[in-house]
Formats: sequence, structure tokens, C-alpha cells
Amino acid sequence: MAWVITDALTEGGFSVVQASSGEEAIALLDKDGATYKAIVTDINISDKITGWDVAKHAREVNDKMPVVYMTGASAHDWASKGVPNSVLMPKPFAVAQVITAISQLINAAAIAL
Amino acid sequence: MAWVITDALTEGGFSVVQASSGEEAIALLDKDGATYKAIVTDINISDKITGWDVAKHAREVNDKMPVVYMTGASAHDWASKGVPNSVLMPKPFAVAQVITAISQLINAAAIAL
Amino acid sequence: MAWVITDALTEGGFSVVQASSGEEAIALLDKDGATYKAIVTDINISDKITGWDVAKHAREVNDKMPVVYMTGASAHDWASKGVPNSVLMPKPFAVAQVITAISQLINAAAIAL
Amino acid sequence: MAWVITDALTEGGFSVVQASSGEEAIALLDKDGATYKAIVTDINISDKITGWDVAKHAREVNDKMPVVYMTGASAHDWASKGVPNSVLMPKPFAVAQVITAISQLINAAAIAL
Amino acid sequence: MAWVITDALTEGGFSVVQASSGEEAIALLDKDGATYKAIVTDINISDKITGWDVAKHAREVNDKMPVVYMTGASAHDWASKGVPNSVLMPKPFAVAQVITAISQLINAAAIAL
Amino acid sequence: MAWVITDALTEGGFSVVQASSGEEAIALLDKDGATYKAIVTDINISDKITGWDVAKHAREVNDKMPVVYMTGASAHDWASKGVPNSVLMPKPFAVAQVITAISQLINAAAIAL
Repeated sequence: MAWVITDALTEGGFSVVQASSGEEAIALLDKDGATYKAIVTDINISDKITGWDVAKHAREVNDKMPVVYMTGASAHDWASKGVPNSVLMPKPFAVAQVITAISQLINAAAIAL
Repeated sequence: MAWVITDALTEGGFSVVQASSGEEAIALLDKDGATYKAIVTDINISDKITGWDVAKHAREVNDKMPVVYMTGASAHDWASKGVPNSVLMPKPFAVAQVITAISQLINAAAIAL
Repeated sequence: MAWVITDALTEGGFSVVQASSGEEAIALLDKDGATYKAIVTDINISDKITGWDVAKHAREVNDKMPVVYMTGASAHDWASKGVPNSVLMPKPFAVAQVITAISQLINAAAIAL
Repeated sequence: MAWVITDALTEGGFSVVQASSGEEAIALLDKDGATYKAIVTDINISDKITGWDVAKHAREVNDKMPVVYMTGASAHDWASKGVPNSVLMPKPFAVAQVITAISQLINAAAIAL
Repeated sequence: MAWVITDALTEGGFSVVQASSGEEAIALLDKDGATYKAIVTDINISDKITGWDVAKHAREVNDKMPVVYMTGASAHDWASKGVPNSVLMPKPFAVAQVITAISQLINAAAIAL
Repeated sequence: MAWVITDALTEGGFSVVQASSGEEAIALLDKDGATYKAIVTDINISDKITGWDVAKHAREVNDKMPVVYMTGASAHDWASKGVPNSVLMPKPFAVAQVITAISQLINAAAIAL
């Protein structure tokens, strides 16, 4: 995740934990998944594990986990590979879009009847 | 799909095409996918192919395809296995819920900016 | 609840349980609340207990209970007395509006992440 | 408006008033606009007046009027000619879609905070 | 309301008026309610008056008033004690969530048909 | 567009192109419309061309273009003159409302099925 996004999230009051690979992301979810409020992931993060996989794993750990995917490719794949109630962020995007998307998803999860 | 749902859909003005297995559903999607307006699928439909698979295939054929899943099990799986913008219909449900869900999804797809 | 609504709900596939007063509604909720999928209530139902009270009680029993209020008066009261994620149905209304509102609320509750 | 839609609306509990031309629709709106709960209009209804015009006029009379457009052409025009919070119904569609769209729009207008 | 939230709201362009108790909040609403664009309230604010009461009072003064509740306790109470179209912000939350929630609610109120 | 909004958009990560008149806005849309992600426009921008016209033109160029209108007048006109899926920002408003509205509209356009 680019530093500009990490920076904007931190400025918005979020505490950010970064994983340097899909494998590490999945290990972190297995260890501390219950403490995370949302996942922001790139799609192409390693050879074997994609952002689609990380998000699915996050939802297996916590079925209410908000998910934001960032991708340079077309949105077409999201329709079949994304999880429900997730947000797709096609590059280029402004950091304000990420902050708004995450805030909205966390807020919506909190009041989901 | 139970006759009571087929019946209600027909009464609501929809033309219904039924597949007797997941394999047939996928074959129909490959052949006529562009002509279908929505997919309504059970989750447990055959040994090898689930409703999750049929829906993913439908979205690969048409990334705007509305999807309604019917299931007797818990909603937990939907969060990681469902496609975005789909509706989960846990059994038991009333046929009016299916008609409303399909109508809403098709209407929303038509005006999606 | 007028027979025309009961009739339409039944035709839509719902099983309807009717209470003849607010007191009976609250007793039914205490006894079988977990088995109900939604509440449809008039506002003026008895001297002491209003539809606002019945709905609040339903939400204490099940915090995801879909609620539809029917009222002949202005919608103004709903803004301060209604529960979150409820629907107000000002009279006169068509039965299709009630069927759609209930179906939508139940469907939304099922997939609330 | 085709009889099949009028029929379904009536069965759904709505009272339907039909105009035989765009001119008559506008005259009816000027005379009784405050009593109508929603507008369902074709796009191509006469030489001079389109469904886009009728809907705009309805919103000048009542700025909360729910609007459903029915059209055989592409949805492209709706994005620039439609009014906010309206629904586009590209033909062919099932009557259940119209009932659901109108019910949803009227319900939403009633609880708009 | 913590200074960090006041600060973030001010930076987001909002003018913030703070009440030091539920009683003062209600007095301010009675005096200037028409000039406020939204209410952000803690739940436990004094012995007799809760945030639920302040929000109800705000809605009696202005039935379109956007409401954000901040609470350290579970979301369970919101389902029966919250007002319609409000947002619950369970602690801990990031300030960006508050800014997004208030902005969304005010924007939605402006275009509510 | 006031510098305070341009400034906030830039800080939010957006690149801002300003037009000094409705005519220039339309010329820019004709030349580079495909590269813009959203339109933010005042209503009263010149004698002949209004913000309503600029937004309609933007939608003819790109039918998915997110639109935010800023206006000092009442919201009444928006109901008949605004385009679908647009946001009205009645003055006075906070810059955070504009950032949230634009971010939301762009995010929604990206995942519209």
C-alpha cells in the first residue's frame, strides 16, 4: 500500500498495520483478525496469492469485515471475484476516495440491522 | 427451483428457464447468457458444482447479471463466497421476497450510472 | 391490520399472526419473538400502548427485526418515535407497497454484513 | 401504458388514472397533481411532448413525485434527460419490476428525512 | 465531545457549537435548533438525560436533523432507542468516520425527494 | 468554484481543472470529457448557460459522470432540472461535504453492476 494512502489513513485517525505480502496478510488475519476494522488490498500482491484471496480469507475470519480493493486493471473481474459489500477502487484514484470508502463501510457495518 | 417460485415469477411477468443441474446451468449460461436478465440459484445443486460456482460463471459471462442465492444453511458463507451486489435468501422465505429481490436487482442494474 | 393486507401477505407467501391489541402483540413477542420475521403495526392500537411501543419492544427482543408502521397521521412523528431502519406507510397506501417494504427489509436484514 | 401494467398496478392496490397523450398527462398534472402518488410514463408518447417532459412537469408540480420511465431504447438518454431519484425501465420488463419500482419510490419518499 | 473530533469537524469546514451537558444541548436546540445542520452526541452525557433523549428532542424541533451517536457500549440499544436515519459510531472510531457520517447525512437530507 | 473547495479537493488527492464560465466548461468537456472523473458546478454561472446545462452536457459526453451542484437557492429546482444520481449542495456547506459527495459518487460509479 503506497505511503500516501497509509499517510492519509493515519491522518484520518486510523491505525494502519501493513503486510508486505499476501502470505503475511493472511498470517496477520489468522493471528489478529478480530482486532482489524477493515482491509485495504491491492489485487496483484504476489505470485500465488491475490487480493481476492486475502479478502475472502478476511471474510472467513470475520464475515462483516469491510473490504476495499485497489487495482490498476479493469473492474470486470470484481463482479465475479470480489466479495459482497466490498468497494473497488480502480487506479488512479484520490486518497479521499479511500478514506470515504473505508469510513462508509465501517459505519454501515456498525448499524447493519 | 421449487415450482412455487417458478409459478410466482411467471405470474410476475418473468419468463423462466430452469436448469436441472449446475452443469446444465453453466451450459445454458455459455449458450444464452446474454439473453438472461437474472440468476436464481440454490447453493447445493450437485456434487461438484455449487450455486456459488454458477453465480461466478454467470458474472464472467455478464458482469452485470443480478444474482439471488437460496440456501437452507447459515448466511455466513455468503460473505466470502457470494458475488458483489447479490442477494441471499435464507430458507424459509416467502415468494414475495424473491420477486422483490429480483425486481430490485434488475431495476438497479438498468440505472446504474 | 385490515384483512386486505393480511390477504396480500398470505398470497405473497407469508404466514401471518395477528394480535388484537398492543398488549397481545407484546405478549406474542415475549413468547415467540424469535420466530417472527417482521412486524407490521398500526400506530393507534390501544389507549396505553402505541405502535411505536410495540416496535421498540420487538427490537429489544430481536435487534434486527424489520418494522413497518402504518399510520393515518403525518409522518412527522416517525422521525423522533420510529426505530432505525424501519419503514413508514402513511395511509392511504397500496398493498403492494407493504409487500415490497416487508420483503426489502427482510432481504436486507439477511445480507447485512 | 399497456393494459397488462394497468392491470398489475390495480391488482397491487393502486388506483390508476391514464392519459392518452403527453398533453393530457400535463393537463391532468396541472389539475390534480397533488393527488397523484407517482408517475409511470413511456418516453415516446407524442410528437411534441416526451415522457422526459411529462416527468419534469410532474416534478415542478410536486418535487417529491416518484417517476418511472418505460422505454424501448437504450438507457443512455436517461443519464442526461431523466430527473433525480427516478427509475428507468428498459423494455422488455416484467410487470413485477414496475410494481416493485413504484412501491419502493413511494415508500422512500414517505420516509425521506 | 472530544477536542479531536471538534478539531476535525472544524478542519472539515464545519462550525461547531458544544454543549457541556444534555440539559444545555436541549436548551440550545430549543433556542437555535433551526440553525443547526446536524447533531453529534455521546450516549452517556448526564444522569437524567441521555444522548437518545437529545436526539429525539432534536428531531421534534427539526424532523430532518441528521444524528450521529457515539458510544462505548454495544450497538444493541441503538436498534430500539435510536431515531430513524441516524448513524451509530461505536468507540473506538477514527475521526474520518465521523466526518464522513455527518457529511453523508447532511448531503442525503438535502436531496431527499 | 471558490478557492477553499479547490484547495480541499487538491488536499484530498484530486487534480482540479477550473473553467471560468459555462461556455468554457462545455468546451473543456467536449475536448477532454473522457479524462474527467466528476463535475462540480455552481448553478448560476453565466447569463445563458446554467450549471444544469453543464451537467446535462457532461452526461451526454459520459453518461456515468458524477455530478455535484452547488447552489445558494432552494433545492426545489433540482427535482426537475438535476440529472439522475447527482448530489445537490445547498449553500452554506462545509468542504468535507463536497469531498465526501464526490468520493462517494466516483466510488459508486466504479462498482455499478
